[in-house]
Amino acid sequence: MKIVDVLVEQFRVPLPVTLSDATHGEMTHFGLVTVRVVDEQGREGLGYTYTVHGTGGSAIHALIRDDLGPFLLASDLESLDEFWESMWWQIHFVGRGGIGAFAMAAIDIALWDLKARSAGQPLWRFLGGTKRQVQTYAGGIDLDFSIDELIAQSERFLSQGFRAIKMKVGRAVLDEDVSRVRAMRECLGSEFPLMVDANMRWTADAAEQAARALAPMSLFWLEEPTIPDDVEGHARVARVGGIPIASGENLHSVYEFEELIKRGGVTYPEPDAATLGGITPWLKVAGLAESSGLQVTSHGVHDIHVHLLAAVSNASYLEVHGFGLERFIAEPLVLEDGVALAPERDGHGVSLDFAALAPYRVSN
Amino acid sequence: MKIVDVLVEQFRVPLPVTLSDATHGEMTHFGLVTVRVVDEQGREGLGYTYTVHGTGGSAIHALIRDDLGPFLLASDLESLDEFWESMWWQIHFVGRGGIGAFAMAAIDIALWDLKARSAGQPLWRFLGGTKRQVQTYAGGIDLDFSIDELIAQSERFLSQGFRAIKMKVGRAVLDEDVSRVRAMRECLGSEFPLMVDANMRWTADAAEQAARALAPMSLFWLEEPTIPDDVEGHARVARVGGIPIASGENLHSVYEFEELIKRGGVTYPEPDAATLGGITPWLKVAGLAESSGLQVTSHGVHDIHVHLLAAVSNASYLEVHGFGLERFIAEPLVLEDGVALAPERDGHGVSLDFAALAPYRVSN
Repeated sequence: MKIVDVLVEQFRVPLPVTLSDATHGEMTHFGLVTVRVVDEQGREGLGYTYTVHGTGGSAIHALIRDDLGPFLLASDLESLDEFWESMWWQIHFVGRGGIGAFAMAAIDIALWDLKARSAGQPLWRFLGGTKRQVQTYAGGIDLDFSIDELIAQSERFLSQGFRAIKMKVGRAVLDEDVSRVRAMRECLGSEFPLMVDANMRWTADAAEQAARALAPMSLFWLEEPTIPDDVEGHARVARVGGIPIASGENLHSVYEFEELIKRGGVTYPEPDAATLGGITPWLKVAGLAESSGLQVTSHGVHDIHVHLLAAVSNASYLEVHGFGLERFIAEPLVLEDGVALAPERDGHGVSLDFAALAPYRVSN
Repeated sequence: MKIVDVLVEQFRVPLPVTLSDATHGEMTHFGLVTVRVVDEQGREGLGYTYTVHGTGGSAIHALIRDDLGPFLLASDLESLDEFWESMWWQIHFVGRGGIGAFAMAAIDIALWDLKARSAGQPLWRFLGGTKRQVQTYAGGIDLDFSIDELIAQSERFLSQGFRAIKMKVGRAVLDEDVSRVRAMRECLGSEFPLMVDANMRWTADAAEQAARALAPMSLFWLEEPTIPDDVEGHARVARVGGIPIASGENLHSVYEFEELIKRGGVTYPEPDAATLGGITPWLKVAGLAESSGLQVTSHGVHDIHVHLLAAVSNASYLEVHGFGLERFIAEPLVLEDGVALAPERDGHGVSLDFAALAPYRVSN
């Protein structure tokens, strides 16, 4: 496979509703960087990544335009795995994560899309998947909601067919978290899968204390109890907190996941293909999880992750969260009774409406 | 302190001579990103960072121009430590290292320069240093040299007054490394501080084998025996290899250094202010090293690092290596018998000749 054209564009897209969580404050926009690649036969692949508030979008765009794009055009692509490794080393001095991982992700996703489309298969099937159903959860961005608003949101989720829900924790006072989670547990019943997400709000000590306080509510998982850099803290909370731990949306290399998994810091690894460097490293993390007897979940970008979770044998829940991107996608994710169906269209099957995105374009 | 103007520029500068090492291939250019900040009183500070081949330069430039620069202009700067922390969180989703660390470095260095200049002190004294002498070593980029060329280079280094030398290792055949190091040891005598640098060339197993083979030559340190992601590998080589380990030029956060130090993976931590996020995190790494009884060394950018090593009580050798930037610096580093003198000029005292750099400017 040989790429003859790379088109990279950057957008700053207003969110349909302002979101907020314990770490990122009020989010009114998100950044979108798209990559379209064209091979010698004129076939196209589409990749994309996103950023909170749009921060870092132009740096991702610049890295693809000036460095990774030209490198891609000059490369042989027989093995996407080998090409990914060569990208890693091409930008290693400024890489090993961060913006490099986002830029590599957009390219890697585009290449997998192209490869699956060339094979005339949907991505999940191209990757070896055998069934298209993936269980999902609804994630509320609801740290500032009142308990009444929380309950009302849950009722909406239930009426939409969801059979698992995640809520935010990390209020200034732990007792408030406990009351809110208890109210949700009482509303949903004791068996209903309920996750909580602290978005790195706590120190490891505070996370341990919070986990112990929340453990009686039989949570499905506690997500990002503390900063991603504190692997030992994660391991301690997992060991003594009494709640399974999900983590990974802020990790940007397979090595970081390997360390977290090996040291017992995570129960549900949560790689995000769009911020980890693409589908190639996502699959490696899923493999690492499998060999440690763990199920893998996802973060954001559900239109891509539905394929990846359908492709692996150790899939946990898919997070349904797409930053409002569905307005620009021809055929957004289909849910049936809280179960997502990986599409049967070739490749990842995401077709972006670039005309509708045009008003939000920052650079190309 | 309030910044009212930020000027960021990107350059792609040809190297005076082509360099090569075990990882980066032939290097003909380096990338330079400069930041000039101006405060309300019209005082200026200068910061800069650099990249191999120039790769990533435009992404660093874009991140400062579009994200960190505007954030700096909107920030209060009473504490540089607190401001650094706020930058870390401002770009956290795309950060935690990589290009973000380079961009933060250029800004942080400019702010420390401005702060020391405003105080009318050289940076090393402003940071609490009491003597300006810093021992140095000469680093050969010499993996492809013949043994004769190696010896000739050493004689040049000795005649320039150097009292410590580092050479590259990581040839395709380990026996060649052993012969080359033995020839150097015989030439320099048994007491002369001789370091070797593998530039991540080996797996941990190969590094262990190489360290055992090289240990009889009483090396001062073995640098970057394997990839920076393999902390356990570093610890093993340090434990059983028989040579002190230097590492850190490819680490981009204090957390990464903390992990490597805590787990016994490094004897001489080697932070690079220009790629770690600046002077603020460099000092934290030096502090971590001190509390573990370790001496700290440096990587590149000797005009900045001479101040930092002069400022701390646990300084090891300064690497004399500036990517040929001395052509553009008004008063380059002064060496006397292999000892560098931190300048007495205010701030870091580096004055770049922007007129001479202009032909190499890529964007501003």
